Amino acid sequence: MSQEGAEVSRRKLFGWAGAGVALAGAGAAAGVGVDRLGTASASTSTVDFHGEHQAGIVTPAQANLHFAALDVTTSDVGELRQLLREWTDAARRMTAGQQVTADGAVGGAAEAPPTDTGEALDLPASQLTITVGFGPSLFDERFGLAAKRPPQLVDLPVFPKDKLDPARSGGDLCIQACADDPQVAVHAVRNLVRIGFGVTQVRWSQLGFGRSSSTSRAQQTPRNLFGFKDGTNNVKAEDTDVLRDQVWAQAGDGQPWMAGGTYLVARRIRMHIETWDRESLAGQEQIIGRSKGSGAPLGQTGEFDPVDLDVAGAGGVPVIAEDAHVRLASSQTRGGVRILRRGYNFVDGSDGVGHLEAGLFFLAFNRDTRTQYIPMQRALSSKDAMMEYVQHTGSAHFAIPPGVTPGTSWGDGLFA
Amino acid sequence: MSQEGAEVSRRKLFGWAGAGVALAGAGAAAGVGVDRLGTASASTSTVDFHGEHQAGIVTPAQANLHFAALDVTTSDVGELRQLLREWTDAARRMTAGQQVTADGAVGGAAEAPPTDTGEALDLPASQLTITVGFGPSLFDERFGLAAKRPPQLVDLPVFPKDKLDPARSGGDLCIQACADDPQVAVHAVRNLVRIGFGVTQVRWSQLGFGRSSSTSRAQQTPRNLFGFKDGTNNVKAEDTDVLRDQVWAQAGDGQPWMAGGTYLVARRIRMHIETWDRESLAGQEQIIGRSKGSGAPLGQTGEFDPVDLDVAGAGGVPVIAEDAHVRLASSQTRGGVRILRRGYNFVDGSDGVGHLEAGLFFLAFNRDTRTQYIPMQRALSSKDAMMEYVQHTGSAHFAIPPGVTPGTSWGDGLFA
Repeated sequence: MSQEGAEVSRRKLFGWAGAGVALAGAGAAAGVGVDRLGTASASTSTVDFHGEHQAGIVTPAQANLHFAALDVTTSDVGELRQLLREWTDAARRMTAGQQVTADGAVGGAAEAPPTDTGEALDLPASQLTITVGFGPSLFDERFGLAAKRPPQLVDLPVFPKDKLDPARSGGDLCIQACADDPQVAVHAVRNLVRIGFGVTQVRWSQLGFGRSSSTSRAQQTPRNLFGFKDGTNNVKAEDTDVLRDQVWAQAGDGQPWMAGGTYLVARRIRMHIETWDRESLAGQEQIIGRSKGSGAPLGQTGEFDPVDLDVAGAGGVPVIAEDAHVRLASSQTRGGVRILRRGYNFVDGSDGVGHLEAGLFFLAFNRDTRTQYIPMQRALSSKDAMMEYVQHTGSAHFAIPPGVTPGTSWGDGLFA
Repeated sequence: MSQEGAEVSRRKLFGWAGAGVALAGAGAAAGVGVDRLGTASASTSTVDFHGEHQAGIVTPAQANLHFAALDVTTSDVGELRQLLREWTDAARRMTAGQQVTADGAVGGAAEAPPTDTGEALDLPASQLTITVGFGPSLFDERFGLAAKRPPQLVDLPVFPKDKLDPARSGGDLCIQACADDPQVAVHAVRNLVRIGFGVTQVRWSQLGFGRSSSTSRAQQTPRNLFGFKDGTNNVKAEDTDVLRDQVWAQAGDGQPWMAGGTYLVARRIRMHIETWDRESLAGQEQIIGRSKGSGAPLGQTGEFDPVDLDVAGAGGVPVIAEDAHVRLASSQTRGGVRILRRGYNFVDGSDGVGHLEAGLFFLAFNRDTRTQYIPMQRALSSKDAMMEYVQHTGSAHFAIPPGVTPGTSWGDGLFA
């Protein structure tokens, strides 16, 4: 049997059941070490790179993130297409716990630069996932891709109170690497950046930790830097109907090549934690709309109790305030709209005036950013009581193409 | 028996054997999860906070670092002394896996700000250590401490090729928090910073991962972002004679209150990884003086084989080059001088011109920086072939006072 034949057989074996495939592998892995939110001892596991969808979306969120946005510096579309082939091959190997190439960091010729940078040599796969996307700016006149631009991939508007830094926003391409070991995630981004030398360059990059949303019911809900559980009502890997309706692009959505893909909104949200820490416990809970300890919606007792926006307290005033975050972001308020969040906490040194430069690197996947993220963020940025304590300092939007098979590349649909 | 009595008994039980105490606890913990360099599944363990020396020095290096340098903003020496008492109490609790106070994030009055910020509520101790130090600038006229300044705590010179950023250098105080979970380390620093509100403010802070030196023979040697094993010949927790001679300050060293303490040099070293990655394998190995795969010194076969600087290759040229890092930094070249390194890798976003802002946050402990770190760094910065690929962008020096007992504070010796 030829190698291609073997790949086809393997593909049939797994049935390309999309979320099912990713979930089976990753869910099992997450079960290994649930003592530390499912992340501590699961590090030797691999997450299947192939599938209907890219890994790193419904994969139970790993402990660490390295995200990079890149600009394409070549005007040769053939170089861009070739880069996407090379990235796919390298990611296929690295997510399997292998080096970038068979020669790797130490197996090549002594006179040549090593083809792997080596800092992950002794480390296991650590559930590494690598997810790649295309920014709106990629679909300009440079590469003749304007006709392939998905209508969902709009330029994000500037929302009220945004204070965006151009050096932390935008990008022609993105790489999201998640792993249970930060060195493995850093190694993955670094080596893809290196492969792209002369074709792309890093526009900005962001490290994150403490994943600020769980994406599977097998995971405990983590806490953000406000000290609150975050992502209780997130779309989870197990919610296959919601994923189909609200996360995965469908064939009739406008650009058939995006079917099985999704749209990623990345927002760097600075959190003024010093100011937050001076707010009373009751004040914090009113702003969020949940209990800080249990995570239960105000008026309820358990974290996963349904949010009831109508519970009235003293004098008929709603227990969950009109400007509470959970009210404004809830699918009830938003006409049933949901998004899949997959953010990470960050601390990027200090801000030069005595405070930590800390916050949430918000990552969310949705099927149509125009009707999901944008209206939600419009409401939040103008009404949310939490806006007093946060500031959006970076913003980007990417089309995440569908998953690949053993013989295909991330760029195949784009260049078909 | 009074609480104090119980503490005394406990102290006697453990015998305050200094490095021995720290080693027994931490060494055992590191043995739990050696699959991932001893860090993965050891996260529920605690490291004893009390002892002759502070924890976080010979403690087997945890996976993650949050380091902060602070300036004192009060001129009231009583406030400073009180802060050090409060920091000690809070650190005693947090390193035991407890919240900052008994009330904590959710147990206090609803009308008051919580006394713990809450983001570590569901997380185990994760081998958290908190280590505190005093910078040279603390010993100025503000607090009447000039006569207490240790002669070893010099202002570090500017070394050749330094490109120091004042915003990443210096500081009156430092906090080093190490843990196997970055959120636990971040929580520790944030809460100490918060306790210091009105007395101190953050001057700079640095996150790190992938600990770039092992500090115990129970740990595998990790790799730095040049892809090389780093710290093979580091002073280890087991080297009690070397620790006494070269790391721990002794009673006769000048300031008796520093006995059992040590001196910490912190250097933020930007690594030009993109340039390094274009160097050949042979070139990289010549610069380091070791094999990239095994870590063996050039001319030897095993990582832990003694470095032999005299092995000659073709034409009598030394196999380990005259400007190789391992030669210049070796204790043989340095007249027997050694230091205890405890650095971490970092990636702080990108540099704005297309590269990752990556490097090594170098932390080293020595008994006398004047005769140990400074001469070594003078030699390296002027001769080391590696200097072509690195740049020191931050620099700080701190006196690390000795450890505390259950009834004492980090400031007791300073203010005695």
